[in-house]
Amino acid sequence: MASVLNIGLVGAGVVGGGVVKILAARRDIFAKQFGVQLRLARVADLNAQRLAELPVGDAVVSASAADIVNDPSIHVVIELVGGTGFARKLVLDAIAAKKHVVTANKALLAEHGPEIFSAAERAGVTVWFEAAVGGGIPVIKALREGLTANKIQSIQTIINGTCNYILTNMSQRGVGFDEALKEAQQKGYAEADPTLDVGGGDTGHKLAIAASIAGRGYVPYEKISIAGIQSIAREDILFADELGYCIKLLGIMRQEGDKLDCRVHPTMLPKSHILASVNGVFNAMRVVGDSVGEVLLYGRGAGELPTASAVVADLVDIARDLARTDGARVSMHFYDHHHELPLLPISEVRSHFYLRFAVEDKPGVVAKIATALSAEGISIASLMQKEMPNPVPVVFLTHVASEASVRRAIANIEAAGIAHQKTQVIFVER
Amino acid sequence: MASVLNIGLVGAGVVGGGVVKILAARRDIFAKQFGVQLRLARVADLNAQRLAELPVGDAVVSASAADIVNDPSIHVVIELVGGTGFARKLVLDAIAAKKHVVTANKALLAEHGPEIFSAAERAGVTVWFEAAVGGGIPVIKALREGLTANKIQSIQTIINGTCNYILTNMSQRGVGFDEALKEAQQKGYAEADPTLDVGGGDTGHKLAIAASIAGRGYVPYEKISIAGIQSIAREDILFADELGYCIKLLGIMRQEGDKLDCRVHPTMLPKSHILASVNGVFNAMRVVGDSVGEVLLYGRGAGELPTASAVVADLVDIARDLARTDGARVSMHFYDHHHELPLLPISEVRSHFYLRFAVEDKPGVVAKIATALSAEGISIASLMQKEMPNPVPVVFLTHVASEASVRRAIANIEAAGIAHQKTQVIFVER
Repeated sequence: MASVLNIGLVGAGVVGGGVVKILAARRDIFAKQFGVQLRLARVADLNAQRLAELPVGDAVVSASAADIVNDPSIHVVIELVGGTGFARKLVLDAIAAKKHVVTANKALLAEHGPEIFSAAERAGVTVWFEAAVGGGIPVIKALREGLTANKIQSIQTIINGTCNYILTNMSQRGVGFDEALKEAQQKGYAEADPTLDVGGGDTGHKLAIAASIAGRGYVPYEKISIAGIQSIAREDILFADELGYCIKLLGIMRQEGDKLDCRVHPTMLPKSHILASVNGVFNAMRVVGDSVGEVLLYGRGAGELPTASAVVADLVDIARDLARTDGARVSMHFYDHHHELPLLPISEVRSHFYLRFAVEDKPGVVAKIATALSAEGISIASLMQKEMPNPVPVVFLTHVASEASVRRAIANIEAAGIAHQKTQVIFVER
Repeated sequence: MASVLNIGLVGAGVVGGGVVKILAARRDIFAKQFGVQLRLARVADLNAQRLAELPVGDAVVSASAADIVNDPSIHVVIELVGGTGFARKLVLDAIAAKKHVVTANKALLAEHGPEIFSAAERAGVTVWFEAAVGGGIPVIKALREGLTANKIQSIQTIINGTCNYILTNMSQRGVGFDEALKEAQQKGYAEADPTLDVGGGDTGHKLAIAASIAGRGYVPYEKISIAGIQSIAREDILFADELGYCIKLLGIMRQEGDKLDCRVHPTMLPKSHILASVNGVFNAMRVVGDSVGEVLLYGRGAGELPTASAVVADLVDIARDLARTDGARVSMHFYDHHHELPLLPISEVRSHFYLRFAVEDKPGVVAKIATALSAEGISIASLMQKEMPNPVPVVFLTHVASEASVRRAIANIEAAGIAHQKTQVIFVER
């Protein structure tokens, strides 16, 4: 191909604006270093004002994404529209027009990955998505290339800045969830509708992608067990702190025999855990590989320029590929989308647990709970009871038990009226 | 090319043995995933016993590296001999024979980079070296590809496990340098001759390579200012601790106008600094880019399988390249070895400093030191004096000052007999 890579950008919002700025600032450096000019040829956005304010150079601007897909000179389409409706059609149309695609859209890839990667495979083009997971932190490249020699044994990741900001704030300032969410919204760290973030869906999307690459197969998003942080109370943060733990929303992948244990939930981590010190809007991914051991990648997982940094890295990778060959180096083998990986049901997950029961302060209650736990084979690691007005919280840390046995024990305890029906259950990682 | 990558390995020691083991275990997975068989065709080592104990499969083993260079069917030579003598000749011979090279040899690349990369450029082959910096942590790939959209503003790195193990031990157990070194040697974390590690040379080699990629030019190793950890006394660790700092051996690169500030020295870091919690044999690199902001990569920087993990990642990259084209994707543009980057002289570096003077405990001494510092424009941030037998240590933390002014002030103070001639100077990062 020529020494020019013609780029069409759809969506000139926050991240798209960052891409335009980086390309404008560093075009000449890239041309000198890689022998390929990364040329922003077209930009489409419904908001003409945005387009007018960006340094688009001699790019053709319009409100129509179809203009980009239909332009035969365009080599790469950057999709920064978001969502799974229009974006899905746009990406499939671009692929059908034999254009490479760069996207930051984790929802699209997690929910429609096999459809998109199959289409790309048929068309002989590639779909790039470094920006979809971890913003500017090169986690996809690390999993896909840097750590490729490894069987990945586990991933633990803090990958949603909104949740981490809220939990950090609850922990450091002692505020409740609602107040912390409101403040995050005021600072622009949470959306007006925060459901996808605080409900864990966004973390689930990113985990599905990372686990697919790590597991060399396809992890279906809809089969991942997902719980958000809305249920975390101020007192859980305080009890965790007293016990030497903090609470983080984790995406977890772990090889368990021939199954993958994939889940998203609030998690208690010992304060000495490397992820315990990842605070505020920062993201981190801890990966354990059979050869490399423990690796951590840390940085800003969102924002205009960090996310644009990852989009542009993908563009440079495409430019490097195309400068030398008409094929693609990494090709469709990001993961094997034909091969769905079997997941371990959440009920079979074995873990330590934090259980907070709400009980009436009367003799024998703790003994009854302990007996009910014991009946399910759950043994108690530690126990904490505070003098408080009724209902009194009683906190247990358990030794390793299956999630199913914990659920059964709690159902029995609540059904027998020993505790109120609002028992808090939090997974504990070591 | 064919769907087989024929690999010749020279040096079957610790890392070489790890490479053999990973290839044996994962050959079939790579073949399935990338459509290329990574075939270990030849292994050379002077130690026949080693070769007999490794799962080399049907590879031809011998004591002769020349057998590998002269075999026209070999596509890639892995150099794991170490040093800059035989290894330099081997790498240049392999390049002349038009073979790609994978090496973990930081000394070779840092000291002979332009010669080697020029030869590779002429021969149209590539030289890969992920394992040379940070062992299994994919730092080279991150700098070269993942963060390529950025102007890298700074690097701070703990990249020598021996030094970090010794300093961690001195800090956590209160032992002196000699005892900590001896223990590191007993555990196999330090060589019998530890000079290259504890003297900072190894960190300098790795910094030269990382800074060359980050700066998109060539940083000559011999021009980097390097100081080791031998001079760090138990009392420096203790004073640092009281002041809220720890001491780490850092490789530092910072853009200063049109020059690069590159240096290696023991450094005081606030305990809240992200690198302060990198302990024992672990390595980490903190990179700040103009778009991505702060990124940290952390993991095991040495050892059999972690380092082999990086070597094999390079092999897979080569296989992916060669499967699709007869050219090379990343090509010689790891960095521009034709373009030497101008370095900032250490004397012009501006920093906070820790100064420990050895004085006689008599009236007016501290005032005289403060006056001499002030005469060079150095202002004092904090001051600590302990009741001890003579000579008494007096510790100053300075505000930002140039290294040259600090050296002048100390020379004046020592020449005037105010302090003994053994003033300790440690750079302080914030």
